[in-house]
Amino acid sequence: MGRLPTFDQETQVTDRKLSAYRESIDNIDAALIFLLAERFKITKKVGEYKAEAGLPPADPGREEIQIARLRSLAESAHLDPEFSEKFLRFIIDEVIRHHERIADDG
Amino acid sequence: MGRLPTFDQETQVTDRKLSAYRESIDNIDAALIFLLAERFKITKKVGEYKAEAGLPPADPGREEIQIARLRSLAESAHLDPEFSEKFLRFIIDEVIRHHERIADDG
Repeated sequence: MGRLPTFDQETQVTDRKLSAYRESIDNIDAALIFLLAERFKITKKVGEYKAEAGLPPADPGREEIQIARLRSLAESAHLDPEFSEKFLRFIIDEVIRHHERIADDG
Repeated sequence: MGRLPTFDQETQVTDRKLSAYRESIDNIDAALIFLLAERFKITKKVGEYKAEAGLPPADPGREEIQIARLRSLAESAHLDPEFSEKFLRFIIDEVIRHHERIADDG
């Protein structure tokens, strides 16, 4: 076994480790932002169609199906299904706000 | 100009349109869930390191940098920067809950 690292060496090692983790987190966050941008482009089109057709912004039946699907995907990815549901509701709340804005403007 | 579609034909066309939109939304949501699962794998490692090193779960300096970066990425993607900030805070809140759980268990 080699010498134990001094405190400074250890700090540098862990800082490098932390930096590497944070670099990956930042890459994933960029991907999330771009995917969300794409998702809102599509829901904007859906919202315009719904406003034209006089359909309500929210669709509880569709939401139930989405939640069940995401919970199942989350389980397969070892992500907390509760969190996946909270996440979808967070996104849907934003979508509904957008749709209501479209309906108000229309 | 051809005949105007009857109501039924129009409904079918728009339903096909709505179905296609929803298919894309579902694909994006699956990608989001898998990316989030990967992100939490990394923040779990960060949390374990922080708990070992006795560092606080939250890091306001790092968060400010992340928020500024995501707002700028959001702008370039034509996504509401306010939403990108809310989104990051939503994710970070969950991460902090995970870290606190690790610290409590440790």
